Amino acid sequence: MEVYNKEANIMNPEWNNLINKMLDGNIRAIARLITNVENRIIGWQDAMKVIYSKAGRARVIGITGSPGAGKSSLTNRIALMLREKGLKIGIIAVDPSSPFSGGALLGDRLRMKDIFSDKNIFIRSMATRGALGGLCQAAKDVVRILDASGKDVIIIETVGVGQDEIEIVRAADFVMLVLVPGQGDGIQAIKAGVMEIADLYVVNKSDRDGADEVVNDITSMLEMSGRSSTQKTKIIKTSVINNTGFEDLIDIFIKINKIPIEKKQYYFDKIKEEIFTLLEIEIVRYIKNKWEEDEKLDLAIQSIIEKQNDPYSLVEKMIAVLN
Amino acid sequence: MEVYNKEANIMNPEWNNLINKMLDGNIRAIARLITNVENRIIGWQDAMKVIYSKAGRARVIGITGSPGAGKSSLTNRIALMLREKGLKIGIIAVDPSSPFSGGALLGDRLRMKDIFSDKNIFIRSMATRGALGGLCQAAKDVVRILDASGKDVIIIETVGVGQDEIEIVRAADFVMLVLVPGQGDGIQAIKAGVMEIADLYVVNKSDRDGADEVVNDITSMLEMSGRSSTQKTKIIKTSVINNTGFEDLIDIFIKINKIPIEKKQYYFDKIKEEIFTLLEIEIVRYIKNKWEEDEKLDLAIQSIIEKQNDPYSLVEKMIAVLN
Repeated sequence: MEVYNKEANIMNPEWNNLINKMLDGNIRAIARLITNVENRIIGWQDAMKVIYSKAGRARVIGITGSPGAGKSSLTNRIALMLREKGLKIGIIAVDPSSPFSGGALLGDRLRMKDIFSDKNIFIRSMATRGALGGLCQAAKDVVRILDASGKDVIIIETVGVGQDEIEIVRAADFVMLVLVPGQGDGIQAIKAGVMEIADLYVVNKSDRDGADEVVNDITSMLEMSGRSSTQKTKIIKTSVINNTGFEDLIDIFIKINKIPIEKKQYYFDKIKEEIFTLLEIEIVRYIKNKWEEDEKLDLAIQSIIEKQNDPYSLVEKMIAVLN
Repeated sequence: MEVYNKEANIMNPEWNNLINKMLDGNIRAIARLITNVENRIIGWQDAMKVIYSKAGRARVIGITGSPGAGKSSLTNRIALMLREKGLKIGIIAVDPSSPFSGGALLGDRLRMKDIFSDKNIFIRSMATRGALGGLCQAAKDVVRILDASGKDVIIIETVGVGQDEIEIVRAADFVMLVLVPGQGDGIQAIKAGVMEIADLYVVNKSDRDGADEVVNDITSMLEMSGRSSTQKTKIIKTSVINNTGFEDLIDIFIKINKIPIEKKQYYFDKIKEEIFTLLEIEIVRYIKNKWEEDEKLDLAIQSIIEKQNDPYSLVEKMIAVLN
């Protein structure tokens, strides 16, 4: 276990070096640090402790919506416009089909070459698989690193369907949901989880037929849920073809505030949630390592295959050590 | 802690009574037992130990696909046809918009009244939210209860997009993926995770234009992934309007076999995965209870809000008790 003293900044010199470079906004250091934390390289916890104390300034925007709604194009556009206002941008793409993840057509990536070549826009893509149920926590860690590295706005782009994805946008300060005309089923798919938490509804590709119907659908939904009275919730129509709606979007984005620290219950609940998530991830990692050391686990599984034992009894026994 | 002796069947008499009725196929007992296990009512572990020893006979079919693909109608049809062959059916719907969950239009439920009134078809809907990351384990527990209660075929219907949902269908003996013409984006959305694991591809609503293109898409995908040579993987076109494809479907379903116990590595990996999942859920529950007992956790969160502490340090401390 690394020993870290907050005052004296005593830490593994390699980590220390990496963190200092990251705090200066060095792109390679940011990327490396994220990878090291994701891979739980020894010392990651101490690193995150320092980073946690430096973070908390950036505004975090979650952009979500059904596949094909044009989230990546919007993210691209918004990022470039915020750059023009002098803001530093971080983008986290939690969507395997996003151009930011390299999952989309090459044409999409070429169309977005401006954003890839801007040194003040840091883009990180995260896999939606294999994160061991810890995708949301992993995203939070990345947000904090980007925040500490000096980014003003961090955009998280996710496809708005799975539970993990909903958890991720819920962690943002501000949630923008992108819908498009002519995707009745698409709206269905996201309705269950994300519709209720969005702060802003964007009807993209609004040059197409049916844009006003989507606006009406959202309005009725807001009225039904009693949210129409909240001034915070807005609906904006955008169109890349007609180049409309983007100024309104940016106006909203530059006015987003962090939720005031006075709203203690809000922060209390968020922190509590995160503690349990972290706890879960770390305990499992700990116990996995412990049990996989010798052949104990293999023998136990063997006895389950032979029906001499069952998973419930085994887990009961494993937990008994805690008592 | 309940004391349970496998030989003498000593257990809390209420649980014992419930389990015996469930083993006889009593519908209320099955429902009650599932609820008790879901809510971790004291004694649930001992109950699951007995159930585990009685389960293992039923074939488990996962049905998944994009929203609007007609999964519920197909499930309904398949269940009724398997009933005609004299099989007992269990249906687990992990989809809030499914008619089985009561989430869909009333019309859908009325259309399906045959299935709701058949005493030998047990339908259980599971929420996709709030299962504390344990949705997949919860589904496994329900599968085992239905299996032990004498069901021959258990169908799990999930929307094929989120990570949880993929995990759930992965636990099935056989995975059927439902696609429809004209949902290019829908296919995109599921491609990343489920496309690779399906044993059977169903192109539903094949009376619509574009059905053959979907078949071609699947074929090329299978060729690209080198899976076209596997005889196991089939593509079937279905249409409720033209009443085609269903006989072929049923032919496949009645021939599904459990994966032979000789494939030890397969079972080994599955059991290992389950042990870690169960362990995760149970340890977190244990530590949560422990920390929430007194005000210890609240005070710790308070100190994080005041930036005198951080979640990473706190979790490190919580885990230290394991050393």
